[in-house]
Amino acid sequence: MLDKVLNAKSVAIIGASKNKTKRGYQAIKTLLSDGFEGEIYPVNPKEDKILGLTCYKDVLDIKGPVDLALITTPARTIPEILERCGQKKVAGAVIIAGGFRELGEKGKALEQAVIETAKKNGIRFIGPNTSGMINLKTNMNLVGIKNAPLGNIALLCQSGNMALTLITEATIRKHEGFSYYVGVGNESDIKFHEYLEFFRNDPDTKVILMYVEGMSEGRKFLQEAYKTSIKKPIVLLKSGRSATGKKSAGSHTGSLAGKSEVAKAAYERGGIIVIENSDELFPVAETLSSQPPVKNNAIAILADGGGHATIAADLLSDYKINIPQLSDKTQEKLRAILPEAAAVSNPIDVAGGTDSDPSLFADCVKIIIQDPNIGGILVVGLFGGYGIRFEKSLAIGEEAAAHRFGAMIKKRKKPIIVHSLYSSHESRALDLLRHYDIPVNDSLDISCKCVASLCRYGNYLKLYHAKTNFIFNWRNKAKEEGNLIIANARKKGRRVLLEHEAKKLIKLHGANTSVGHVAKTEDEAWAIAKEINTNIVLKIISPDILHKSDAKGVKLNLRSEKEIRKGFREIIKNALSYKPQADIRGVLVAPMAQKGLEIIIGTKTDELFGPVIMYGLGGIMVEIMKDVTFWVLPVSPNSCKKMIEETRSSVLLNGVRGQSGYDKKSLRKLISICSELIESYPEIEEMDLNPVLLYEQGMDVVDARIILKE
Amino acid sequence: MLDKVLNAKSVAIIGASKNKTKRGYQAIKTLLSDGFEGEIYPVNPKEDKILGLTCYKDVLDIKGPVDLALITTPARTIPEILERCGQKKVAGAVIIAGGFRELGEKGKALEQAVIETAKKNGIRFIGPNTSGMINLKTNMNLVGIKNAPLGNIALLCQSGNMALTLITEATIRKHEGFSYYVGVGNESDIKFHEYLEFFRNDPDTKVILMYVEGMSEGRKFLQEAYKTSIKKPIVLLKSGRSATGKKSAGSHTGSLAGKSEVAKAAYERGGIIVIENSDELFPVAETLSSQPPVKNNAIAILADGGGHATIAADLLSDYKINIPQLSDKTQEKLRAILPEAAAVSNPIDVAGGTDSDPSLFADCVKIIIQDPNIGGILVVGLFGGYGIRFEKSLAIGEEAAAHRFGAMIKKRKKPIIVHSLYSSHESRALDLLRHYDIPVNDSLDISCKCVASLCRYGNYLKLYHAKTNFIFNWRNKAKEEGNLIIANARKKGRRVLLEHEAKKLIKLHGANTSVGHVAKTEDEAWAIAKEINTNIVLKIISPDILHKSDAKGVKLNLRSEKEIRKGFREIIKNALSYKPQADIRGVLVAPMAQKGLEIIIGTKTDELFGPVIMYGLGGIMVEIMKDVTFWVLPVSPNSCKKMIEETRSSVLLNGVRGQSGYDKKSLRKLISICSELIESYPEIEEMDLNPVLLYEQGMDVVDARIILKE
Repeated sequence: MLDKVLNAKSVAIIGASKNKTKRGYQAIKTLLSDGFEGEIYPVNPKEDKILGLTCYKDVLDIKGPVDLALITTPARTIPEILERCGQKKVAGAVIIAGGFRELGEKGKALEQAVIETAKKNGIRFIGPNTSGMINLKTNMNLVGIKNAPLGNIALLCQSGNMALTLITEATIRKHEGFSYYVGVGNESDIKFHEYLEFFRNDPDTKVILMYVEGMSEGRKFLQEAYKTSIKKPIVLLKSGRSATGKKSAGSHTGSLAGKSEVAKAAYERGGIIVIENSDELFPVAETLSSQPPVKNNAIAILADGGGHATIAADLLSDYKINIPQLSDKTQEKLRAILPEAAAVSNPIDVAGGTDSDPSLFADCVKIIIQDPNIGGILVVGLFGGYGIRFEKSLAIGEEAAAHRFGAMIKKRKKPIIVHSLYSSHESRALDLLRHYDIPVNDSLDISCKCVASLCRYGNYLKLYHAKTNFIFNWRNKAKEEGNLIIANARKKGRRVLLEHEAKKLIKLHGANTSVGHVAKTEDEAWAIAKEINTNIVLKIISPDILHKSDAKGVKLNLRSEKEIRKGFREIIKNALSYKPQADIRGVLVAPMAQKGLEIIIGTKTDELFGPVIMYGLGGIMVEIMKDVTFWVLPVSPNSCKKMIEETRSSVLLNGVRGQSGYDKKSLRKLISICSELIESYPEIEEMDLNPVLLYEQGMDVVDARIILKE
Repeated sequence: MLDKVLNAKSVAIIGASKNKTKRGYQAIKTLLSDGFEGEIYPVNPKEDKILGLTCYKDVLDIKGPVDLALITTPARTIPEILERCGQKKVAGAVIIAGGFRELGEKGKALEQAVIETAKKNGIRFIGPNTSGMINLKTNMNLVGIKNAPLGNIALLCQSGNMALTLITEATIRKHEGFSYYVGVGNESDIKFHEYLEFFRNDPDTKVILMYVEGMSEGRKFLQEAYKTSIKKPIVLLKSGRSATGKKSAGSHTGSLAGKSEVAKAAYERGGIIVIENSDELFPVAETLSSQPPVKNNAIAILADGGGHATIAADLLSDYKINIPQLSDKTQEKLRAILPEAAAVSNPIDVAGGTDSDPSLFADCVKIIIQDPNIGGILVVGLFGGYGIRFEKSLAIGEEAAAHRFGAMIKKRKKPIIVHSLYSSHESRALDLLRHYDIPVNDSLDISCKCVASLCRYGNYLKLYHAKTNFIFNWRNKAKEEGNLIIANARKKGRRVLLEHEAKKLIKLHGANTSVGHVAKTEDEAWAIAKEINTNIVLKIISPDILHKSDAKGVKLNLRSEKEIRKGFREIIKNALSYKPQADIRGVLVAPMAQKGLEIIIGTKTDELFGPVIMYGLGGIMVEIMKDVTFWVLPVSPNSCKKMIEETRSSVLLNGVRGQSGYDKKSLRKLISICSELIESYPEIEEMDLNPVLLYEQGMDVVDARIILKE
C-alpha cells in the first residue's frame, strides 16, 4: 500500500521555486544532483522552467502519472492542494509544513481538514511537520541531507536533528548506510506501524532503526513489531522519559508506573531492542544489520592488552553475558602460537604476541571461533593501528588478518566485532573489515553494547512465541454475574467498584479472596463477625474513599464483641472526619487473612498501549524498591512465569535462608485471572489488587479496587 | 621528593642500543625528536656513540649529575644496575621490565630484591612492569607514544593500552592535553598516593586522571585524595568490577560487599569523580580542567532542535540535575529575539531562529547565563556545523558567536559545554571554542555526563569537611572490660566472640542490646527465663556455629517452662546434628525483642581500604534488594546522617503511608558506636549486627557477631 509513496517513480514538487533559500528549490536541486531515477515535475503557477525542468502551472497539467507530491507550501494551502492532487490521482504526499496540532486548537482543526481531504481523495501522506523522506535506493531524496550513505538500515525518526545525527554518524563510520529515511512528523495519516509493515517486507532492509518521542497507535505498533522482529531486528530509542510520571494517578499502581516504564516494557515485549543512550543507537543497528545473532550468550574477548580486556569483561558481565573458559583443546592450540605470558582462558590476552606480526590475530580468531563454548568474538585493542602506532610495515599483517576475518565470517555463523582505538584513523585493515561487513568501533563501551544486542537478539529468537499477538478476545470469557456487578455500578453513576463488588468479580473468575459482608450498623457488624468466627478486619466502604488507610478506615485483628462494635463506630467517625460529604455504604466485615508474602498486582489502561499489568513485591517495598515489572495484556501462562522471574524478589518465592517458598502456581494463576478479567470486561480502566498475600500453599486477595472507564 | 624523578633534568638510558627495534634505541630517539630539555646519557658497555650522543660504558662514567635512570634491561639485571646507580647518586629510576610478582613466587623474590636495593641506595622508582613516564612540559618522553598533546591533565594509568587510548583521544579532540603521564606499573616503590601528592602541588596540573586496576595502599591514597580533590578534581575509572565478590566470606556483610562496591564508595568518599564508562573518562577530565564547577546543580539546555533537547533533558534528569524554568525576565528577553514557535522556558529550543544567523546563539547564551537560577549552560545540536550543513557563509556567524562565548566564559563563573554533531568535522567555530577552553563533544550522552561531573564537583566542594581525614585514633576510647573480653577470646584461641561476648562489648560502648545469660542445662535455662519473665528467645552458643539459623539453633517466643525446656533440648540436638564436633557452650536465654524495622550494620576490613562499614535494610531484603551503603571508617556524626539518607529505604525511617517513623537518632548513634568500636579495638576484623530492630523510640541489637583478626 505504501509502495507508491515510498517507492514513488514520479514526484511532483508543489511549491517549486527559483529562490535558492526555498525548500521548493533545494528539493529539485537535490533530486537532480543525487540522480533520482524517476520523473521530477516542478509545480508553480508563476514559473515556466526551474533548474532546466519544465515547470507546471498546476498538478493537473502534468502529462504522465504522478505517484508522489512533495508539498512545500504553508499549512493553510494544504487542503486545496490535496484536492487537486486527488483529481490527478496522486497516490501519496509528503507534507513538510508545520503549524498543525503542535500549535494547539486552531492547528488541530486544520490538521483534521488535511486528514479528511486526503482520505476522501485516496491520498496517503507522510507528515505534516516533517523533514521529509529519502529512498536511498532510487535516490529520491526529499530531505536535502547530503551524502547519506546507501545501506540496509531503514530509519524512522521523529526528529530531523536526530536523523541528521544518525546519518552523519553513518557517514563517519564508513560501514553501513540506509535503505530509507522517513521523518514521520505528526503521524497524521501513515502511522509507525504501517511503515514497520512496509520495511518488514522490503528485501533491502535488514534492520529498522527508530527514534520515537510519541506514537498514536501503540497497540497496533506492538502487533506489527512482534511480527517484524522475528524477521529483522528493530532498534529503538524512546525519548521523553523525564517528562513523564506527572499524572497524579488515583491508584498506587498508576503513580508508580509512569508512562516510560510501560513503554519500555511494551517495546521489549514486542521484541524490540530498546536503547537508552543515543550514542549506541546507530552502532547497534549497524551490528545487527551485519552480524548473525549470538545463539548461546557466550563471548570470547581477544585483546592485545590487559586494560581493554578487563574493561570489556566488566561491561559484558554487566550485560549478563557469559565469558566462558575456552575448552582445553582451544587453550592448547592458542598456547602453541602465543608467548608464555599470554592468557589463553578468556579473556585472551596475546601479551605482545601480535607485536611483530599482527596477522597472528587471525590465527587466534580462527582457533577461538571453532570452540563450541563460544558464540561470538569481540576483538579489543589496537588492531588496525599497528601500522600507524608502531611500524608502517606491520599494516600488511593487519590487512592479511582482515582478509582472513572476512573469510571466517562468511563460513561460520558466529559474529566478530572489533574494537579499535584507530577506528577514526586511516587504516586499510579496518576499511577491509568494514568491506567484509565486520563492525569496527572506537568505543569499548559501545562495542560491548553491540555484542550485548547480538546476544539479546539471539535470546529473543529462541524465546519467541508465534502465538503472542497482543490481541484481545473482548468479552469472550465474561460471566453474567460479572456483567451485572459492573452494570449495577454504572447504573448508580459510579466508576469505582466497592471493595466487596471488586472482590466478588475476581472471585467469580477463580481468585481466592474473602469477600465478607457489608454491615450498615454496629449490630449487623457483630452478627456477621459472630458468623465468621475468627479474627476480623473491618474496612470502610465508600465510593468516595479510595485509600481506606489514609482515612483511618481499617481496623485489623478484632475478635470480641466489644472490639467489633468499637471498631465499627470509630471507622464511621474517622471516615466522616476525613471526608464529611462521603457517601458511606457501611463497613465491610471480613475474616483476617493469615500472614503471608505481600505482593501487588495492578492493571491500567496506558494511553499508548492500552491494558497493561504490573506485578511486584507489595507493601511499602513497592514504593521504595520499585521492584516491579510491567507487561502488556493479555498474557499467556508462560508470560506469567517470566513476569515473576523478572523481578529481583523472585528468589524470595523460591524460599531463601531456610525459609520455605511460596505458591508460585497460585500466583501465576492470579495473574492469568487478571488478564482474563480485563479481556472479559473492557469497561475496566484499572484494577489494583493490593495487597495479595501469598502463602506456601495458596494465596488471598486481601484488598481489591476496580475503576471503570468513563 | 618526586621532583627529581618526574621533573628530572638529566636522564641516563641504561640499556641504550643501536638496534632500532629495542626500547633502548627508541627511547633516545624519542627524547631527541621530542626535544627533551635536559641531558641524555646513553649507557651501554659495548657502544661509543648512539644517535650522535656519547655512550657511556657505565653510569659511573657520566660526568654530570644524573637525576633519573631509564632502565630498559631485563628483570634479572635490575638489582645490580640499581647498585651502580646508587653509587652515582641517581635520584630515581623508571624500570620497564616485566617479570616480577605478576609471574608468581620467583618474580616476587626478585621484586623484593629490587625494592630493597633501591631503598638502600636512596633511589625512588616507577614500575617495574610499566610502559614508562612522560613529562610533557620538558618533553621527557620515556614511553614512545608520539604526539601526546601538552596540557593540564596529569594521567596516572595502570594499563599501557588505556594510556594510549586516552592520549589518542586527546589528540583527536584537539582541546586539552597532559602535563604528565605515569604508568605506575607494579607500584613497588612509588605509590599512587605519592603521585597524587606531587600532582596536587604541581602548578601546571589542573585535573588528575586515573585508570586503576588495583592499589597497594588504599587508605593513604584516600587521605591524599581527600586533600587533593578540594584543590583539583580527580577523575578515576576502576576496572575489574566483575572479577570481584568471589571470596566466600564467612559473614553476610562480607559476601554482599564484594570489593568493588567498597572501592567505589571509598573513592567517592575521597572526593573522587568515579567514572564507569571508559568513553567518559577523558571528556570528563577535559571538562573539569577547563570549566568552573556548577554551584547550584541547575542547568539550562539551549538547543536548535527538539530531539536533542529532549534527550539531553532525559539524561540530565537521570543525573538528578535540575533544569529549572528560566525567570520571567529571561524568558521575555529570549522571546524578543527568537521566533514565535521557540520554547523559551528550559530546555530552550530556538526553533529555526538560528537558521539564517547562528550568531544568535551568542545572544541567547548571553541572556541565559545572566539568569540567577542557572548554574551553567549546555548547548546541544548543530552549532559549528551550520557552515558545513547549510551554507558556507553561515560559518561566519558561528565564528562570531564562538568569540563571544569565549568572552562570556572569561567574565562569568558559569560553565558552557557544547554538544555538536560536527565536532569531528573541520569547523573553525568549534576550533575557536576549544581555543577559548570551551569543551566540545560530538556525543550527547557524554556532554551530559560532563555537565553532571561539573555539578557533582560543585556539590562536593560545598559538602567538603576539612576534618575528615580517614585517620584512626587507635585504642583511644577502648575500655578495660572490652579489652578483657577480647583478650579472653584470644587466650582461648578463638577468633569469634560468642554472641553474649559481642553484645557485652557493644553494650559497653552504649548500644542497647539484651545480652541475656548462657544456660548450660535445661534447669539453668528455665531459671534464667523465669527471672526475665517475658517471652524468651533461645540461641545456640558455639564458636563453631556462625549461622545459628542454618543449624536450627534458634527458638523464638517461648514462655512456659515446658516450652523453654523442650526448646533447650531441641537446640542442643539440632546443633549436634548440624555439626557433630561442635564445641557447644550452652544456650543463650534472652528476652524476645519487640517487632521493629529490621536493619543491618556490618563492618569489615577491606584489603585495600581497611575498616569500612555497611548499613542497610536488614532481613531478607538486604540480599535481594541490595539497598545498602558502604562508608570508610571512621565516620563522623554528620557522615552517619548522610549514610542513612543515601539508601533508598531512608524514606521508610521518616514514616510512609500513615505509618509512624523510626528513631533515626538512635540509629545514627549506633553507627557512631560501631565506628568507635573499630577505633577502640583494632583486633576486630569484622562485626555483624544483624538484625538490629529499630523502633519509634530506641532500637535493639538482636544479634551481634564479632570476628577478630588472625
